[in-house]
Amino acid sequence: MISVKEALQTVLDSAQDFGVEEIPFINSVGRILKENIVADRDFPPFDRVSMDGIAIDYSKFKNGQRVFKIEGIQAAGSAQISLQNSENCLEVMTGAVLPKNTSAVIRYEDLEIANGVATIQINEINNRQNIHQKGKDGKVGDHLIKENTVISAAEIGVLATVGKSKVKVAKQPTVMIVSTGDELVGVDEIPLAYQIRRSNVFTLVSLLEKLKIPSETAHITDDKSILKEKIETYLQTYDVLLFSGAVSKGKFDFLPEVLNELGVEKLFHKVTQRPGKPFWFGVFDVFNLMKENVCQDAKNSRDTKNKKNTVVFAFPGNPISTFVNCLAYFYPWYYKSVGVKQQIETAILAEDVHFKPNLTYFLQVKLSDRFGHLIATPFSGNGSGDLASLVKTDAFMQLPKDTTTFKKGESYPIIRYR
Amino acid sequence: MISVKEALQTVLDSAQDFGVEEIPFINSVGRILKENIVADRDFPPFDRVSMDGIAIDYSKFKNGQRVFKIEGIQAAGSAQISLQNSENCLEVMTGAVLPKNTSAVIRYEDLEIANGVATIQINEINNRQNIHQKGKDGKVGDHLIKENTVISAAEIGVLATVGKSKVKVAKQPTVMIVSTGDELVGVDEIPLAYQIRRSNVFTLVSLLEKLKIPSETAHITDDKSILKEKIETYLQTYDVLLFSGAVSKGKFDFLPEVLNELGVEKLFHKVTQRPGKPFWFGVFDVFNLMKENVCQDAKNSRDTKNKKNTVVFAFPGNPISTFVNCLAYFYPWYYKSVGVKQQIETAILAEDVHFKPNLTYFLQVKLSDRFGHLIATPFSGNGSGDLASLVKTDAFMQLPKDTTTFKKGESYPIIRYR
Repeated sequence: MISVKEALQTVLDSAQDFGVEEIPFINSVGRILKENIVADRDFPPFDRVSMDGIAIDYSKFKNGQRVFKIEGIQAAGSAQISLQNSENCLEVMTGAVLPKNTSAVIRYEDLEIANGVATIQINEINNRQNIHQKGKDGKVGDHLIKENTVISAAEIGVLATVGKSKVKVAKQPTVMIVSTGDELVGVDEIPLAYQIRRSNVFTLVSLLEKLKIPSETAHITDDKSILKEKIETYLQTYDVLLFSGAVSKGKFDFLPEVLNELGVEKLFHKVTQRPGKPFWFGVFDVFNLMKENVCQDAKNSRDTKNKKNTVVFAFPGNPISTFVNCLAYFYPWYYKSVGVKQQIETAILAEDVHFKPNLTYFLQVKLSDRFGHLIATPFSGNGSGDLASLVKTDAFMQLPKDTTTFKKGESYPIIRYR
Repeated sequence: MISVKEALQTVLDSAQDFGVEEIPFINSVGRILKENIVADRDFPPFDRVSMDGIAIDYSKFKNGQRVFKIEGIQAAGSAQISLQNSENCLEVMTGAVLPKNTSAVIRYEDLEIANGVATIQINEINNRQNIHQKGKDGKVGDHLIKENTVISAAEIGVLATVGKSKVKVAKQPTVMIVSTGDELVGVDEIPLAYQIRRSNVFTLVSLLEKLKIPSETAHITDDKSILKEKIETYLQTYDVLLFSGAVSKGKFDFLPEVLNELGVEKLFHKVTQRPGKPFWFGVFDVFNLMKENVCQDAKNSRDTKNKKNTVVFAFPGNPISTFVNCLAYFYPWYYKSVGVKQQIETAILAEDVHFKPNLTYFLQVKLSDRFGHLIATPFSGNGSGDLASLVKTDAFMQLPKDTTTFKKGESYPIIRYR
């Protein structure tokens, strides 16, 4: 058994780069940017009128002039025109180029206009007012968005502005999610007395969907030869295999054995945590395969040129264990793989918590906000089988081992799932 | 001009129910549940073995027996078997039904097994241990998920477990997003000196995508008759129209006029806020149309039986204004429409902020977490045109009007966009 910290480090050390692909920018929300986005021109690209009104030569106002004949109009989207007579003005619209020979914009609210003449109603006007100066927000060549940013709606606007109709993003790993266990039937089926429906694979599909990772699912019965045959194919096809179940000490928990026979190197099995202890993690490493004496079929079937390692997360089969381990290990592995630095979030315990076993405790909590303080109220479910408890909570609070009492008011890391 | 509070109330009062649809549960993440999810059987549905090991008659252990002959095996997914001789035991696997005539499970770790005989190595065993009791997590008929819950991965697992392969969710409104402004060109195009690329519509598409609302986009040139013609069609087709631009005082800001002529009732124009002040909001109400003397074409073309009101959000055209107003008004309108109670989140100011105008100030902030305290560090961009500043920040902090100094350490509501 290894600690959560060691397990996480091992998982992170197995992160790998899946390359880059170019996709339409409008489909890139939630994906990881894999290029620096640079301004293709100044921001704004011209001295931009920022209020509807008139543009004048400021020096005339300064010299006491208040009445300006309207010479014409500068609309947004029209080429720049010039003020011909510096004692006149031009009507200007928000978004328009500031006309030549003008240096201040007075908004309609501060004007009276009659018979083609604008009279300024206020006495305080600044030079260059209501003009959004060329290059003020950024210069051509400025870095606007850094590589490895998670793209959100805010980035979409910038991508559009600089003309990035296609954008480079991290390629997603290909993922197969496999459930095992003869007690499982389909969601559409009516289970017999001793059966239950498959649910963990769908939870995992949804957790991956949150990361914009598409996945496939399969179910394998508790038959060693079938399990081996199928997994061999999956190892050739996918970058990641996620399993739920068949990693404990049961007679039909063939998974660790089968993975070993197929040449998947076990990096750890069992972590000092609750829930989720019997977590098995390994890597199918092409390079090792070549050196070591492993199943010849697996070796032969492997295309060593085009295929990277396959990472195998085999989670314990109970719902909360699968859920917490996906968040606590697969998520960090993914973020590391695509180059994103994950922020650790913390919350404040609303009441004392006692936990005796010398294990890291992933406590389910309900989050609430009080004046900028994030309060975590513990929820005591019925242990790791109680899937319905996830519906009532928002996050896992990660309470360290080697401590049995966690005091109200203390803060600890949380992993949100809502 | 009305206050942010009044504007928000007006928007919320225009919320409407778009009905319910049934979709495959696996596609329902992010959608709003429109039925109560009830346990179709007990949770767990049988006395469930929760450790791999042996099942015994506890009274035998209590009477001092430590050595049990293994009579057989109870696998997960097999019909319940019976212990024939109460002095024997059965091997049992996690997830299996507890065999008849047994009352405690001892895990393999606490056993020695040799020649078909299990010897218990520990002296403390409890009646019913390692048995997840039928109905402990929930009884048949229990409400597991309430109507109006936003479905996440946690809910997906429960839906699968109770066999809800299809699930009732709130129907999404149909949305058309329209940009106006002759200075705008496509993302693929190279703008002339006085032009810029369209960006706000794509930002809005992404913000709606976050709510799982699909949308369409269009661009209309600053020509009143074309604007009128197109909007008339949109009013017949969509539940919501989102505009960006053409709501200020400019000569070509025809939108309020056109909407009025088409029978869209203006509920407000301009809100005491920065940025986003010239926000125009109205409703195209079929019932009012019948009573009042409005454009006959609009009346005729309207299918009053099958079509609900069309709600019109016309946002100011600068990027930050459009962004903040979508979050501050469209989001709450949507959540109200689909029956979700939005939680208000707050954060703590990291430094003093001074803001003179008597307007609600949507301050851009960068969020960070310190021991469960959510800290908001103000970011002073270059005003509402500076789209790139959104990339550097995480949320808007809503600072009330009637106050000019906001002190470090005070907490205020925030609207996150990351």
